[in-house]
Amino acid sequence: MVWKKEVRRVRDRQAAWIGSRLYQEGLITANFGNLSYRHGEGFYIKRKGEYLDPLGDLVFVPLDGEVPADASWEWIVHRAIYCETPHQAIIHAHPVHAIAISFGVDEVLPQDCEGELVCPRIPVVTGASGSTELAQNVAAALADAPVVIVRGHGTFAAASTLEGAYVATSAVEHACRILLLLKGIQNR
Amino acid sequence: MVWKKEVRRVRDRQAAWIGSRLYQEGLITANFGNLSYRHGEGFYIKRKGEYLDPLGDLVFVPLDGEVPADASWEWIVHRAIYCETPHQAIIHAHPVHAIAISFGVDEVLPQDCEGELVCPRIPVVTGASGSTELAQNVAAALADAPVVIVRGHGTFAAASTLEGAYVATSAVEHACRILLLLKGIQNR
Amino acid sequence: MVWKKEVRRVRDRQAAWIGSRLYQEGLITANFGNLSYRHGEGFYIKRKGEYLDPLGDLVFVPLDGEVPADASWEWIVHRAIYCETPHQAIIHAHPVHAIAISFGVDEVLPQDCEGELVCPRIPVVTGASGSTELAQNVAAALADAPVVIVRGHGTFAAASTLEGAYVATSAVEHACRILLLLKGIQNR
Amino acid sequence: MVWKKEVRRVRDRQAAWIGSRLYQEGLITANFGNLSYRHGEGFYIKRKGEYLDPLGDLVFVPLDGEVPADASWEWIVHRAIYCETPHQAIIHAHPVHAIAISFGVDEVLPQDCEGELVCPRIPVVTGASGSTELAQNVAAALADAPVVIVRGHGTFAAASTLEGAYVATSAVEHACRILLLLKGIQNR
Repeated sequence: MVWKKEVRRVRDRQAAWIGSRLYQEGLITANFGNLSYRHGEGFYIKRKGEYLDPLGDLVFVPLDGEVPADASWEWIVHRAIYCETPHQAIIHAHPVHAIAISFGVDEVLPQDCEGELVCPRIPVVTGASGSTELAQNVAAALADAPVVIVRGHGTFAAASTLEGAYVATSAVEHACRILLLLKGIQNR
Repeated sequence: MVWKKEVRRVRDRQAAWIGSRLYQEGLITANFGNLSYRHGEGFYIKRKGEYLDPLGDLVFVPLDGEVPADASWEWIVHRAIYCETPHQAIIHAHPVHAIAISFGVDEVLPQDCEGELVCPRIPVVTGASGSTELAQNVAAALADAPVVIVRGHGTFAAASTLEGAYVATSAVEHACRILLLLKGIQNR
Repeated sequence: MVWKKEVRRVRDRQAAWIGSRLYQEGLITANFGNLSYRHGEGFYIKRKGEYLDPLGDLVFVPLDGEVPADASWEWIVHRAIYCETPHQAIIHAHPVHAIAISFGVDEVLPQDCEGELVCPRIPVVTGASGSTELAQNVAAALADAPVVIVRGHGTFAAASTLEGAYVATSAVEHACRILLLLKGIQNR
Repeated sequence: MVWKKEVRRVRDRQAAWIGSRLYQEGLITANFGNLSYRHGEGFYIKRKGEYLDPLGDLVFVPLDGEVPADASWEWIVHRAIYCETPHQAIIHAHPVHAIAISFGVDEVLPQDCEGELVCPRIPVVTGASGSTELAQNVAAALADAPVVIVRGHGTFAAASTLEGAYVATSAVEHACRILLLLKGIQNR
């Protein structure tokens, strides 16, 4: 048990550091976005209305059964991902270029080296916020890809660590920003 | 009275934190923008020429009667909002995408999920800076919407807390930035 | 003399704070840009290769006569401004939108409220870096306007205080960024 | 030996400061990018997966012979540059505007004053990441120019100090950002 507490302390510290990076890089603004990591028979997730930077206390959500009222209202997506994939950590962000490019397409193919390495094919899925449909679509997409864009909404990145999910989130926005700049050059 | 002082201390701390976030997110630059919160028979507002980050001492403006000479010259808009709506806090920012998109339109309709949630219809109003006309237009618009764009000038967001006004300010700029990126993609 | 030292200390502190703001707002990058303030029979200016953030020790340049070898190589522009206008402080920055918009035009007219207030007409001048011609053109333009753009190069803002020059620098870039966004919307 | 240790301490401190600047200016995100400096018969370089901000411990790579397993996987490019040019320090970054502009061109010619001064001709080269071909192309280009863009990938800047390489990295992105803004204005 002491060991489990120590694991949580380390992960919380990492979560706080990554929350701050997401904010500094403009991948989230205000109190939007959330993150979670697997722990025991469930996962720790941001609370409703709390910030990723500075990161508020996380709340435990079991993989099955009742969910605390103050868990981020996107807990349903996080739970579906943990139930249906082996991922251990999830970051949900609202990066503007990834959101803008997602309208009218079903996938995004990076042309930059970093994007080709980290997220060579970025699926775009749909579904109302907080719906089971969205949860299923995101979880299914993350079985094959490290990061998915929910059309007009934002990104969900999943990995074995929060750091992996952060790197994928940063890479997808970087790739989409370059693609939008390229559209500007090529179509003129 | 001790209790009132404590309330002010908490709100001033929150105001300073939010001022710093507005600057970090690029929603304001230099000493532009201002904020206020309701208190007793009036409100505390930024002084003329002071910064939101770091936030200078605020000055008290009564809902009715004489106004201190060093109150932000947009006190007239803040007073109208407090007199005509139940809002308890106001943030005025100068975010570039919201300003750019406001020319030639009477409202802005976000297409991103965050915008649809926080500010599904963003009214655009006009009026000379510091004029009664502007004050009335902004106050009227904020009776129905959490945030309004003054054409070519900036945003006024109002809520029951400064935090609510900050989240709305951040959401409106996020929505407008995505809309401008979309215009770039779709019209080519 | 003690009083003069104290004045310098205050101004140096303000200069350091403003240097840091210029960097945070992206108005300068790396060690580009410089600033100076009038003092006695000359002015203090950034040294060659030093940074505005964190601000290195400034060096004294007399209004007339020999110039220290390590003074910023744009001392010639600063000296001309101090000799030919009543300004007491100067900031030279490299903001990208102001630079981009300056090609092919002789003046820039802001359409946003902040720009109309602070810099309603922004002259665009030319001249090789470090040349007497550039110095004369900038000084002449700053007799009538708080800020000027050197085509393809950057801005010179002058005022009675460094703070005034900073606010003008920030306002001109804000105005140019909005104008470029507007071009993107209107010409499609 | 004591002297050599002191040299390393100073350079590591400078490397950490520069890593932080690269992140603040958006020239790198997440853990992308790397840097190195010459030392004795080899060079110190970032480790795989480590961050430039905050900068992790660097690892020594000899100019010839076996390479530690945890050296940045771009050590091959750094080694080629040190073997074939007199440069003493290298920065590899992923700035979006430089990457976007590199598609379909063999060189980039800045139009801004800062770019004309620091990097008047920016070669664009190709080659798979980590390949000998890329290493040779980059090293050859850096014999004549302070900074090169690897198409769709990022920049390599080299100089006698890390500071020189940082200034060149910052200048090339600044120049490319202005060129892309100009394309937006002129082609409409």
